[in-house]
Amino acid sequence: MRTLLSSLLISATGFVLAPSPADVPLRGFFPQSVQAQRDLEARFKTMPDPARMREAMRRLSAHPHHVGSPYDRDNAEWILNQFKSYGWDAHIENFDVLFPTPVERVVELVAPTTFKASLQETALPEDPTSNQQSEQLPSYNAYSIDGDVTGPLVFVNYGVPADYEELEQRGVSVKGAIVIAKYGGSWRGIKPKVAAEHGAIGCLIYSDPGDDGYAGGDVFPKGPMRPPQGVQRGSVADMPVYPGDPLTPGVGATKDAKRLTVAQATTITKIPVLPISYGDARPLLAALGGPAAPSAWRGGLPITYRLGAGPARVHLRVKSDWGMKTLYDVIARLAGTAEADQWIIRGNHHDAWVNGAEDPISGLVAELEEARALGALYKQGWRPKRTIIYAAWDGEEPGLLGSTEWAETHADELKAHAVAYVNSDGNGRGFLGVSGSHTLEKFINGVAMDVEDPETGVSAWKRMQASQLLNGSTDVRKDIRDREDLRISALGSGSDYSSFIDHLGVASLDIGYGGEDQGGIYHSIYDDFYWFTHFSDTSFVYGRALAQTGGITVLRLANADLLPFAFTNLAETIQTYVKDLQSLRDRRAEQISERNKQIDDGVFKLASDPRDPVTAPQRQQAAPQLNFAPLLNAHDSLNHAASRYDKAYSRAVSEGRTAVAKGVNDRLIQAERALTSPDGLKNRPWYVHMLYAPGFYTGYGVKTIPGVREAIEQGQWQDADREIARAAAAIDREATLISGLATTLSGGT
Amino acid sequence: MRTLLSSLLISATGFVLAPSPADVPLRGFFPQSVQAQRDLEARFKTMPDPARMREAMRRLSAHPHHVGSPYDRDNAEWILNQFKSYGWDAHIENFDVLFPTPVERVVELVAPTTFKASLQETALPEDPTSNQQSEQLPSYNAYSIDGDVTGPLVFVNYGVPADYEELEQRGVSVKGAIVIAKYGGSWRGIKPKVAAEHGAIGCLIYSDPGDDGYAGGDVFPKGPMRPPQGVQRGSVADMPVYPGDPLTPGVGATKDAKRLTVAQATTITKIPVLPISYGDARPLLAALGGPAAPSAWRGGLPITYRLGAGPARVHLRVKSDWGMKTLYDVIARLAGTAEADQWIIRGNHHDAWVNGAEDPISGLVAELEEARALGALYKQGWRPKRTIIYAAWDGEEPGLLGSTEWAETHADELKAHAVAYVNSDGNGRGFLGVSGSHTLEKFINGVAMDVEDPETGVSAWKRMQASQLLNGSTDVRKDIRDREDLRISALGSGSDYSSFIDHLGVASLDIGYGGEDQGGIYHSIYDDFYWFTHFSDTSFVYGRALAQTGGITVLRLANADLLPFAFTNLAETIQTYVKDLQSLRDRRAEQISERNKQIDDGVFKLASDPRDPVTAPQRQQAAPQLNFAPLLNAHDSLNHAASRYDKAYSRAVSEGRTAVAKGVNDRLIQAERALTSPDGLKNRPWYVHMLYAPGFYTGYGVKTIPGVREAIEQGQWQDADREIARAAAAIDREATLISGLATTLSGGT
Repeated sequence: MRTLLSSLLISATGFVLAPSPADVPLRGFFPQSVQAQRDLEARFKTMPDPARMREAMRRLSAHPHHVGSPYDRDNAEWILNQFKSYGWDAHIENFDVLFPTPVERVVELVAPTTFKASLQETALPEDPTSNQQSEQLPSYNAYSIDGDVTGPLVFVNYGVPADYEELEQRGVSVKGAIVIAKYGGSWRGIKPKVAAEHGAIGCLIYSDPGDDGYAGGDVFPKGPMRPPQGVQRGSVADMPVYPGDPLTPGVGATKDAKRLTVAQATTITKIPVLPISYGDARPLLAALGGPAAPSAWRGGLPITYRLGAGPARVHLRVKSDWGMKTLYDVIARLAGTAEADQWIIRGNHHDAWVNGAEDPISGLVAELEEARALGALYKQGWRPKRTIIYAAWDGEEPGLLGSTEWAETHADELKAHAVAYVNSDGNGRGFLGVSGSHTLEKFINGVAMDVEDPETGVSAWKRMQASQLLNGSTDVRKDIRDREDLRISALGSGSDYSSFIDHLGVASLDIGYGGEDQGGIYHSIYDDFYWFTHFSDTSFVYGRALAQTGGITVLRLANADLLPFAFTNLAETIQTYVKDLQSLRDRRAEQISERNKQIDDGVFKLASDPRDPVTAPQRQQAAPQLNFAPLLNAHDSLNHAASRYDKAYSRAVSEGRTAVAKGVNDRLIQAERALTSPDGLKNRPWYVHMLYAPGFYTGYGVKTIPGVREAIEQGQWQDADREIARAAAAIDREATLISGLATTLSGGT
Repeated sequence: MRTLLSSLLISATGFVLAPSPADVPLRGFFPQSVQAQRDLEARFKTMPDPARMREAMRRLSAHPHHVGSPYDRDNAEWILNQFKSYGWDAHIENFDVLFPTPVERVVELVAPTTFKASLQETALPEDPTSNQQSEQLPSYNAYSIDGDVTGPLVFVNYGVPADYEELEQRGVSVKGAIVIAKYGGSWRGIKPKVAAEHGAIGCLIYSDPGDDGYAGGDVFPKGPMRPPQGVQRGSVADMPVYPGDPLTPGVGATKDAKRLTVAQATTITKIPVLPISYGDARPLLAALGGPAAPSAWRGGLPITYRLGAGPARVHLRVKSDWGMKTLYDVIARLAGTAEADQWIIRGNHHDAWVNGAEDPISGLVAELEEARALGALYKQGWRPKRTIIYAAWDGEEPGLLGSTEWAETHADELKAHAVAYVNSDGNGRGFLGVSGSHTLEKFINGVAMDVEDPETGVSAWKRMQASQLLNGSTDVRKDIRDREDLRISALGSGSDYSSFIDHLGVASLDIGYGGEDQGGIYHSIYDDFYWFTHFSDTSFVYGRALAQTGGITVLRLANADLLPFAFTNLAETIQTYVKDLQSLRDRRAEQISERNKQIDDGVFKLASDPRDPVTAPQRQQAAPQLNFAPLLNAHDSLNHAASRYDKAYSRAVSEGRTAVAKGVNDRLIQAERALTSPDGLKNRPWYVHMLYAPGFYTGYGVKTIPGVREAIEQGQWQDADREIARAAAAIDREATLISGLATTLSGGT
């Protein structure tokens, strides 16, 4: 079948044509297994039920269910019973973590006029869960240090490092000041971190209406966007250093774990932070003097955005209850048969900041329907070749607590047994989005080709391709037309895959639909059943699509004869990263040289407006050339090994060589682990993957080949060559492993 | 001197260095004339007086002085007397033009709620001239056709053709609708023209606060920006077809001129138009339904910008008094001596929409100080070699009326005698801006090197360079560092140079300082003495810089031994235009091909959100290859001729060959005329320059080599090759002329 198919790809003119989606074989399955798997998937696909998802969402989001709340535990127990009723072997695993909740919160303008921020989201008569105030966590940023500070206010745009360079050139200092930053532009925890590095004493973060308020559409409850009093809660722990419980870095927060004191926990912020609404932010921003903000910094409020400092002075007081809370991770298992010691793990968290209908319940209800369907197949006699573990994590919102503590607790077993981790964290209408390990890129493309998009009837893959063809740059469009697979993004951080990919080196995928729904209810009391069923995937057909996508992903990983990892895409992706690093160095070198030339030529001084002066930035050290040879050599090795593996794989599949499969699979699951380095990244050893990490100064945003990239970005040239060697070593290990597997698959040893 | 200088440019390493500003010789002056000219300029530069400019501005902007108003005539007579008192031979030249003024203006929302626009700018107690309501023209757009229409409202962004493509893809039609467009993105007259082409029945234009209101700074009177009731008046006549009096295209509007009827005048709009404030626009925009506007379309109002059509319905009524008005052009002359039949013309208009302190008085007061200084030199015995004509134009605001009718009336004399026209139209703080004929690029660089910037003490040239080095792209910065001269922009339209350059082929320059002042008072009652003396060039030191720049430009042109035209910069600039046209064709071809591919692949349909659908655009004809050979050959010829001329010029100057100068000068003044073609541009024969024209669909914005460029942009491929040939013929004529001049200068015939 496959040989015949391959020959069909040679057209009459003798050229090889890119295969159309329907031609793509079921990766990892021997010819004799394909039909059974196709039949199984066809049965599975009919099972996820939008009506059940709707009811599950209603139940799970009926009350606020943050970590430590009664309904968080109640939900966990309900989920546990669901899994059990589906036929799974399920239990709850507890951890004890530091989770501060607010006791005192004050934001007030004390000069030149006075104004006291309400810090209160208002209940709406249309929205039946918005009035559960006694059960809601007030709006706050978890892991803000306690503090009581008063100082001049400075507007810092998104509060990322480049914004402070701009402020410095305009003669605005944040030393001793309270900064106010817009949400967006980075993960929120970066804002107080960078502010503190520059000497600020407090930090406010607000949701600008130009970003997720009225600029994009009607505000809730008339439309989906953020109303004036809506606030985005969220964690500000320094997760790019390590996620999870701040008191137990690297180990599980079990009852008897050795814990740091709160004072020793480096991920707690250095200055107090509080999030506010644009209703509360407007009087503060309007009271600012100083230069007008650069046009790119302006938001959607009908005011002149000014930088300060002052005359606005602000008083900020934050105090939390720093008590320990219990996590309830729900862990369910379907035991495998022939390769039971290989684990396929699927997860979505269940805790929310408030009612959390979208985040996370819209993803969780799809996961539950997958589990129900898999359970039904199991009851009908199907048995997975590998063990399947479904998790509903607790404590994701405060800092990926439930998944991190579980992964740290079970680190040794997971390193030995985990094949892959498949994550979701909410869902909406539109286009399938996939981030993940590039060892799984080819595989997940195949899955996406076999799921139908509910709105168009074509495959999710085809619709994803159409969107990229429409919105991509010339280069992106060319790439899409020339390449067999659509590219998946690298994983940064911000959801429960982080421990798996970043800390353990388990190949991971993060999936979800979206891109058509707009909203401004993220982490507010308005993210609830009323909002979701009025403004998002109201018929839950994308919930079904997510369940089909997640379920087929798991079914294929669990049943494959040969695990569906592929390495040519990985090698090619690494090549793009290396090229990108080379051009990043050249660009930085050119920027530094140009900037220094401008400083030497005095152009800042000459071009400056005396009424609105801009001074020259600091001169920077010229960028040295770097030795990229180790990375280029390692890539060559990997490329060669990947091609050999690809050929060996194709022959083994077409010949149905079951005899070698088990041995190869046992070693294949180490392919992602080979890309890690036990010493981890500089200054953050918890992160051990040499290809992917969240950016130290971006938080969510991924940095690929992070050791090298961040050394270049931060001008730490002395580190860059060493980091090149470390990344190259990891890629070499990968090449060696894969080359060995190719030999084994080809009948060698 | 020059030979010595040239040899100094060879450095010790043998490489030629770019000359530093101070090394640049006085272009056009023989060695024996240089010192006298330098001395003259030094005397001149001390004369322009900021205090006099301030007092002249106070007088000229004391009352509204639009065309037809008593104070317009009063100002003209005062200016006439000033020129006379300076020792000039001056007179007023009258024309009779069609100039409609408003009789009825109604804008009201009639559904789903009602609101009546105030259409009234409010007097402010701080601002002593803002209360002259009985003398002010109400806010309106001159040359809007009368009309009384009611229809659904549609928001069209800036109302340029690309915006209508976007609307069509979103299923929004303007047929039978009234459109509301933001000011900006094109010259205002384009908006009703394009709206009418798409079937709209009325057009509102408003000033969005994101463009010149509170977004950029405090609003007037606290700051310089546009207050909620501020309105931008302005002409909407279709000036890209022809400017000037709509009833006398191509001929002067003298008493006995043959006139079209109003109905025959093609430049009057096809649909009624009215400008409104953002105070009046907000309720209209807030009442719009339909899809949310694309994010790039959103302005600074605190609303969701929606497209419509409806449910907002608007009633628009516009009726004008279509009577004739008299223009008062003030024309002053200092007779030349040796080459009196060669004219140097300098102009700035004196009419305003209301009080017009910035536009145009800030430029006019500088021009008057130039005239006073030249007059003083004249009284002291200095005589210009050539005749100098200073003009204070009337009727610029409604449509370049005064300059156009004067230029059309004197077309034959001007074609025979005009050397160059030097325009200004207001002034501010900051950087010298120069647009103009590239035959004068090298010359005006030399002038800019000899004027001191008041804020930094370096030359205006050096500061202009610093600004471009700071803000330019990599290519721009490289160009600046590699090239002897800073580039000047090509002239589009929007001020009184238009008839000179576009219709007569007189080499022109437009000069003015700016870039540091922000403002939102353009064409409103708040553009007055109070505003200017609080928020712009408050000490009038940039007024002095403009007078020095304009005066030295005139003095050098008037006194030069050999007219300071240079053609290597022209040839090199034409080469950049030709390259740009080639890449424009390739880009358009690629865009069309990609768009067609996307349509064929169905990606629009597949990517469309059913709740907010976007349909595919129309398929377009594939772009054929064009034959650029004639333009490339013509450029080669010009390049060769320009180099020959350059060498001959250098030799003639260094040898002080006065004998040939007169004959060469007589022919040199035809060098710009050679670039015109008597048939003019397609569909707009008034425009005869083959290198420069305002865009048919941009208005102010220049289109270089416009016949070819607009054929490509508009996909009129059958025209493009013919237009290439016509442009090439003009460049060939230029090459032939210059080649002949080189021969003459070298001692041939």
